[in-house]
Amino acid sequence: MVAPGSARPSSRTRSSVNLPNWLVLRLGLDGDEPVDPLGPAVDLHEHRVTLDLRRGVLSRVLRFTDGHGRRTAVRQRRFVHMASHHLAGLQTVVTAENWSGTLTVASGLDGDVTNSGVARYRELAGRHLSVVRIAEPDPETLLLVARTTQSEIEVAEAARTRVVDAPAVRSVTRETSRIAHELTMEIAERAPVTVEKIVAVVTSRDVALSHPGTAAAEEVACAPGFDALLETHELAWHQLWRRFRLDLTGGDSPAAAPTLRTLRLSIFHLLQTVSPHTLDLDAGIPARGMHGEAYRGHVFWDELFVFPLLTVRIPGLARALLHYRVRRLNAARRAAREAGHHGAMFPWQSGSDGREESQRLHLNPLSGRWLPDVSYLQRHIGLAVAYSVWQYYQATGDLEFLAEHGAEVLLEVARFFATLAHHDPAMDRFRIGGVMGPDEYSTRYPGAAEPGLDDNAYTNVMAVWTLRRAADVLSVLPPLRRTELVEQLGLTPAELLRWNDVTRRMYVPIAEDGVISQFHGYRDLAELDLDDYRRRYGDLQRLDRILEAEGRSVDDYQVSKQADVLMLFYLLSADELRVLLGGLGYPLPPDSIRRTIDYYLARTVHGSTLSALVHAWVLARAHREDALTHFERALSSDLADIQGGTTAEGVHLGAMAGCVDLLQRCFAGVETRENAVWFNPHWPSRFGALEFVVQYRGLSLDVRVSDREVRVVAAPGPGPAVRVGCGEDIRTLRPGEAVRFSAAVRRT
Amino acid sequence: MVAPGSARPSSRTRSSVNLPNWLVLRLGLDGDEPVDPLGPAVDLHEHRVTLDLRRGVLSRVLRFTDGHGRRTAVRQRRFVHMASHHLAGLQTVVTAENWSGTLTVASGLDGDVTNSGVARYRELAGRHLSVVRIAEPDPETLLLVARTTQSEIEVAEAARTRVVDAPAVRSVTRETSRIAHELTMEIAERAPVTVEKIVAVVTSRDVALSHPGTAAAEEVACAPGFDALLETHELAWHQLWRRFRLDLTGGDSPAAAPTLRTLRLSIFHLLQTVSPHTLDLDAGIPARGMHGEAYRGHVFWDELFVFPLLTVRIPGLARALLHYRVRRLNAARRAAREAGHHGAMFPWQSGSDGREESQRLHLNPLSGRWLPDVSYLQRHIGLAVAYSVWQYYQATGDLEFLAEHGAEVLLEVARFFATLAHHDPAMDRFRIGGVMGPDEYSTRYPGAAEPGLDDNAYTNVMAVWTLRRAADVLSVLPPLRRTELVEQLGLTPAELLRWNDVTRRMYVPIAEDGVISQFHGYRDLAELDLDDYRRRYGDLQRLDRILEAEGRSVDDYQVSKQADVLMLFYLLSADELRVLLGGLGYPLPPDSIRRTIDYYLARTVHGSTLSALVHAWVLARAHREDALTHFERALSSDLADIQGGTTAEGVHLGAMAGCVDLLQRCFAGVETRENAVWFNPHWPSRFGALEFVVQYRGLSLDVRVSDREVRVVAAPGPGPAVRVGCGEDIRTLRPGEAVRFSAAVRRT
Repeated sequence: MVAPGSARPSSRTRSSVNLPNWLVLRLGLDGDEPVDPLGPAVDLHEHRVTLDLRRGVLSRVLRFTDGHGRRTAVRQRRFVHMASHHLAGLQTVVTAENWSGTLTVASGLDGDVTNSGVARYRELAGRHLSVVRIAEPDPETLLLVARTTQSEIEVAEAARTRVVDAPAVRSVTRETSRIAHELTMEIAERAPVTVEKIVAVVTSRDVALSHPGTAAAEEVACAPGFDALLETHELAWHQLWRRFRLDLTGGDSPAAAPTLRTLRLSIFHLLQTVSPHTLDLDAGIPARGMHGEAYRGHVFWDELFVFPLLTVRIPGLARALLHYRVRRLNAARRAAREAGHHGAMFPWQSGSDGREESQRLHLNPLSGRWLPDVSYLQRHIGLAVAYSVWQYYQATGDLEFLAEHGAEVLLEVARFFATLAHHDPAMDRFRIGGVMGPDEYSTRYPGAAEPGLDDNAYTNVMAVWTLRRAADVLSVLPPLRRTELVEQLGLTPAELLRWNDVTRRMYVPIAEDGVISQFHGYRDLAELDLDDYRRRYGDLQRLDRILEAEGRSVDDYQVSKQADVLMLFYLLSADELRVLLGGLGYPLPPDSIRRTIDYYLARTVHGSTLSALVHAWVLARAHREDALTHFERALSSDLADIQGGTTAEGVHLGAMAGCVDLLQRCFAGVETRENAVWFNPHWPSRFGALEFVVQYRGLSLDVRVSDREVRVVAAPGPGPAVRVGCGEDIRTLRPGEAVRFSAAVRRT
Repeated sequence: MVAPGSARPSSRTRSSVNLPNWLVLRLGLDGDEPVDPLGPAVDLHEHRVTLDLRRGVLSRVLRFTDGHGRRTAVRQRRFVHMASHHLAGLQTVVTAENWSGTLTVASGLDGDVTNSGVARYRELAGRHLSVVRIAEPDPETLLLVARTTQSEIEVAEAARTRVVDAPAVRSVTRETSRIAHELTMEIAERAPVTVEKIVAVVTSRDVALSHPGTAAAEEVACAPGFDALLETHELAWHQLWRRFRLDLTGGDSPAAAPTLRTLRLSIFHLLQTVSPHTLDLDAGIPARGMHGEAYRGHVFWDELFVFPLLTVRIPGLARALLHYRVRRLNAARRAAREAGHHGAMFPWQSGSDGREESQRLHLNPLSGRWLPDVSYLQRHIGLAVAYSVWQYYQATGDLEFLAEHGAEVLLEVARFFATLAHHDPAMDRFRIGGVMGPDEYSTRYPGAAEPGLDDNAYTNVMAVWTLRRAADVLSVLPPLRRTELVEQLGLTPAELLRWNDVTRRMYVPIAEDGVISQFHGYRDLAELDLDDYRRRYGDLQRLDRILEAEGRSVDDYQVSKQADVLMLFYLLSADELRVLLGGLGYPLPPDSIRRTIDYYLARTVHGSTLSALVHAWVLARAHREDALTHFERALSSDLADIQGGTTAEGVHLGAMAGCVDLLQRCFAGVETRENAVWFNPHWPSRFGALEFVVQYRGLSLDVRVSDREVRVVAAPGPGPAVRVGCGEDIRTLRPGEAVRFSAAVRRT
């Protein structure tokens, strides 16, 4: 612990390194030298940190004896309020176990925080706040207003600190960018003293405010005490868990309980990032959540893995998050125009204003060389946006969103891919050149001067899917709105006919053996002896760097970081894929899917956390046991930090959400399409039965899936009838009714 | 015109007084003394300003001869873009009609603008911007970034100026808070020169941006030229007018054409204030629109008169505007709590953060005295919010909005009025004391020390209406959401039972003659000889000030600024009102409504622009000709500036929208209730037939109403079936179908 007054600011920061620095709390024993409870000078008896997923509370217990033989216990509980979205609370209970005397607690606000969580970024600029003002709006409360350095967003924090059960003398320490209260009180042996800190954070991007500083001060002034806040916080979590309920019952696998816990941890992390808090923010779904600095908060395509969970649990939240894309449609249009195309070209990495934020260089730490980064050529991101828009509409029936916002996005993405495709007279096919698929190991043809590949199968097929959905959108729009959109976008009959042509004549590289090629010419590349590399290097997740350090290029080989062809099986049912390819004149041989899966399984090193997920998905139908191995690998991504250190830079939100989605959409087989909700499970019997809840078109459905049966019970009360399907069997379900489907396991 | 360089900033501002000062444009003739085209030194041949409502374009033509005998014509067109919501354009064409020489045009950005449009506010602080930065992002473009002084909102403007058809030499004038380009060019006789200024305005409250300054510069950099922008602007207006179509056909009244024009002007002004631009803003509906500074942009209850137009034309916009209230629910809860009540107490005047912004003093210019202002006691504002929430749900069927947002607002308003009501054992009735109704002439009982009145009939009845709707809301909510809300709000069975009690036992002051009293004891007040006052003072709109200057109080008399009892007939159909009062045990005598109308008609001085509107409404059923007189008075509110100068302080948006609504809801009898859209017209035959379009639950309906027939045609294409009613006749209407109701005029 640090005795206030004697400590310089820098040592103060150091002593609180293990406590989140936005809630600096210091404890001091009067008249002593500073004591760090986690430092070498004390005898630490106990240090336990517990995350209560159910209640969203982090607890810490510290018990130690200092150099004077004094034994002290500190118990802390903290939460970021899940209902009152500006508020957070920190309660600290200090017990002098074998002594009495004076205790000083410092509670402050620190504007000197930096982004320094990622080691390899630390030499870059990490200070993003400049403090505008520090103040004391009332005797219990401190206020700090800062402004972000580039975007000039104001961030105000107000902190109210109270000692609950003892009189305390309060003094204030002001520095340029920090302000703290020091509360000094008498502490008696075994009589716990409780200090409560309630903090409000308000930014100038928040709604319904005059000024963030005023709002933050008012929020804490009106906030009740820690216990009352904790009660409403716990209720909010209780309600979230009711919507995100996930239970495995009756299975015989010892893995079920830890699996379930990890799945719930994933949901918890997801809800730390996006939740009802997000509804009024202009925010997307960042790849690493709010948990770390990697990718600097950029928004990639991870939403593709997150939306399926949100849309059937908190549809309004999914809608709000889709608006992140809706609002950046103009930026995407601008990018398309500048690239010489029409429609909307969404960026691979998106930030505040929707421009392309992908880096153009990256460092290979193995070779020390800076290499060009062309990942921005991943044009497929727009297809993911279009996919999520349509899935939202299918799951919710929210025609107003589609008509007013979603349709325009989907149509403009469709238009972009229709103009990106060029007609190749030699083939009499449409082709898309100069792009990258999701597999970032394939960026250019061997020896090619320019990056980009032709006819990435994932991109070409999903472009056709999007163009077909564009036609669907135009047919379901209310006529007045359709007219408006056609006028605004200047859609012509010629353009619509071209769209239709592309859906019939797009080229997809499929070999005679039925294996879908990752791109045109992929199978002409050299094969690499992966077993040999595995022996030599062990982990091959960054095979690209290994080869580059050897003076080779991963571009020259038939190896994949993640096999993006398989993403087609993740996003589309086998039936849907057959229809799409059939419409293009590609009859898929019966064993084509299985051959394609096996082909890529042998050539994929899983350098992306999403890769294991997608493999688990596609294997669920064919190789159940292999599927579970991949599932467990994906599930452990962050828990075991399988990428060797990247978890500290932020969780992999797509993989976390995707694992839950794997249970829901793949193993339990939930799909929303053709105005029905489908349950076509491939359920692993070892897990017993899965119980969960989905919201479908205004009706709350309790679902139980086992390898023998699907049971769906609609909540009683007002609500519409919906259509529920399993295999060929479609039934109508009304509020209060139940349906069962027996052993209806889909075979592909 | 002002020759640049020779003009001081102040004279420059003066010379542009007739041009909006955010687009300062100056013309200069090289080598001459400054010339003001509207000043005494020139011979002005023509000065014509034309507002094109259909296209949203303001044009100006100026032709003049200066002291040197040079005849010059200036033609300007300007627009604020209706689709690209950051952009505006100003095109100026100068023609030297009988000379040639050098022309200098100045085009700049002015950060010195002040709020000085309202004469009586001019001694108050009027400067609300401080300029942060001026810059030239590219040779054609200027940038000015300012920050509002209190709320610190950043406002960036970028202006790109181009001379289209002549080479020009460009120089820059920078001052502390202003920056301008001066473009000097040769002008030949009769060869027009065109100067285009494209401006982008972006604030830190806008979405999808990194920094307002960057965004504004980028917006103008990417903007096309004036003509191309005008084309998309005109399309946006074309589409708006299609939704807001209003035609009077086949009538024999010479008043029809000017009436229609004024109604369209009202719609135009409404759409200048709220439009699809507003969708992503955290904005409410300000009483004076964006047109003036009176009430300083505060949000009163005018939305009550605006929502009925928007909800059936652009439902998504109505939804967005309701969010202004949703987002301020917490502030309303806080206000209720501080006043010792539960639930939500919305403020009479609402601003940025939802606190009460009503002034506590106002000046009577007739007496020179500052008087206490207790208008904040108008608790009924929350009832208007609840009413609009429910109407939106009825018109759109948008259960998601109701469940996620609207229900909570409505329930909390209901709760507030249930706790505001106290049980009076002497009467065995619930009563609401200490409030004001909408009639601002009644603030306290004669001689009372404390302001506030008991049992304002409008408030008490609408409180009952809201409590009944609260029960309806709870019954239509999806069960899961209902459970969540009941938990969050802590609603108990005892509370719900009390709500029900209040809907059965609320006191409403109804006299034995069937006249509903404005409040308890109103009819015990003295009568005032209004004819006498009218003879002495003429206009009695500000009778309150006249009496105060005479040393009397308007509180002491049975006179009304607006008869707020009559608002009940405006908001509720006669049937609905009978049901409500019947449920309270007040059987309304058959001629009660007519007696009540006549009673207040004799005692109302129409000091509010809304008063004529409401009177027209209630008279439509009984006294058709009187109704039209009031309608024309309301319609002319701003056109004729009937309040003697207040129009310059901003239009009366509620009255403007209300006049259109009068045609729609009263004369044409459109109502959305009980899951049907109703047409029960009281149509004045002199106006022939009214044709308009409504959006009802996803279906676009073309409506034609005359005194003989109602015809409703549903647009063909996809869409739901809806229920359409007239009198007792309810039918189902599917897309592409038509229904007719003959001479089905409702009698009350």
